Amino acid sequence: MADALLLHEDPRSGNCYKIKLTAALLDLPLETRQYDILKGETRSDEFLAQVNANGRIPVLQIGEGADARFLPESNAACWYLASGTELIPDGAFAQADMLRWMFFEQYNHEPNVATLRFWLRFVGEANLSPQQRDQIMAKRAGGTAALELMDGHLADRQFMSGDGPTLADIALFPYTHVAEEGGFGLDNYPHILDWIERIRALPRFVPMD
Amino acid sequence: MADALLLHEDPRSGNCYKIKLTAALLDLPLETRQYDILKGETRSDEFLAQVNANGRIPVLQIGEGADARFLPESNAACWYLASGTELIPDGAFAQADMLRWMFFEQYNHEPNVATLRFWLRFVGEANLSPQQRDQIMAKRAGGTAALELMDGHLADRQFMSGDGPTLADIALFPYTHVAEEGGFGLDNYPHILDWIERIRALPRFVPMD
Repeated sequence: MADALLLHEDPRSGNCYKIKLTAALLDLPLETRQYDILKGETRSDEFLAQVNANGRIPVLQIGEGADARFLPESNAACWYLASGTELIPDGAFAQADMLRWMFFEQYNHEPNVATLRFWLRFVGEANLSPQQRDQIMAKRAGGTAALELMDGHLADRQFMSGDGPTLADIALFPYTHVAEEGGFGLDNYPHILDWIERIRALPRFVPMD
Repeated sequence: MADALLLHEDPRSGNCYKIKLTAALLDLPLETRQYDILKGETRSDEFLAQVNANGRIPVLQIGEGADARFLPESNAACWYLASGTELIPDGAFAQADMLRWMFFEQYNHEPNVATLRFWLRFVGEANLSPQQRDQIMAKRAGGTAALELMDGHLADRQFMSGDGPTLADIALFPYTHVAEEGGFGLDNYPHILDWIERIRALPRFVPMD
């Protein structure tokens, strides 16, 4: 992988951390460029035209100048970095089972666990709109269900998919291990707590900023 | 792929249709078993214990009896079926770019475009909870943004990722082509309308029930 890798990111975002954790575990050099999403820096005309028309980070940039290619969506960027490595298992079922948890993360976990963390820790409860405030209970229930499902799944296995660490773990670790910042206590999820320690013990693990 | 394939589904669900469309395009035999999600049939103790602890369809069952394996998450099931076929391109970037649109579908498109269709067509506006009603405006805006992004992306390409049809198209087609049932008019999206016709013209295409 000779192309230079540049991550367009906000360091507070767990979605960005997924990509940095993947690169670290694989010992890949990765430059970063920071944006403040609270200041709308990913909605500028330049960002929308050159980096991501969806106005979101993270975006993984591969190469530079006119040949640069851009990959939005954190889990897709992780796939690119980990392609051909042990973080993606071989075989149709093993890959599909790993992807199952990555789609679960984006559909059931992130919109609840990560969004409540963002609202409560970074936006601040006092600054939420009435519409956001009305969604807190539903997001609390959805996030709790996602964590309960993970805890039950981890009761008899070491990692989320297969026998070793994969992108399924990398996708779910960032927002799970800081879930308490969104008001989700982890004390009731002993299997998740054990799994967090297993991820932290991986060679070349790096913590979130 | 010798194992019998059984799809646990609700025929009204576009997520289930993705899997049936993938199987049809690849000429794979696929049995189906129907559940009515409005009657809570995917929340029964038996379903939760045997099919999916997450209480959701679709679930692709591979094999039977004690050896059966289960794949929740529609896009993961499509990956399993299409593994090794032209619906998944070769190469790290091409695969990641395809997955990018599949994650976009689950994060930005489905929770807005599909949820409003479900609420307005199947639940009925009069039966929505106040909390659901409060979310209609945000989901209308989010779904419109997702469709605009797709239309712009399709302005200078035939398919969502790469030069031919892939799982990115199969993931996005089901809820896009019935978006009007959720109140999203497609007349303003000429590139989406052309793309819908290209998908419908694929060999062995099957319509949604």
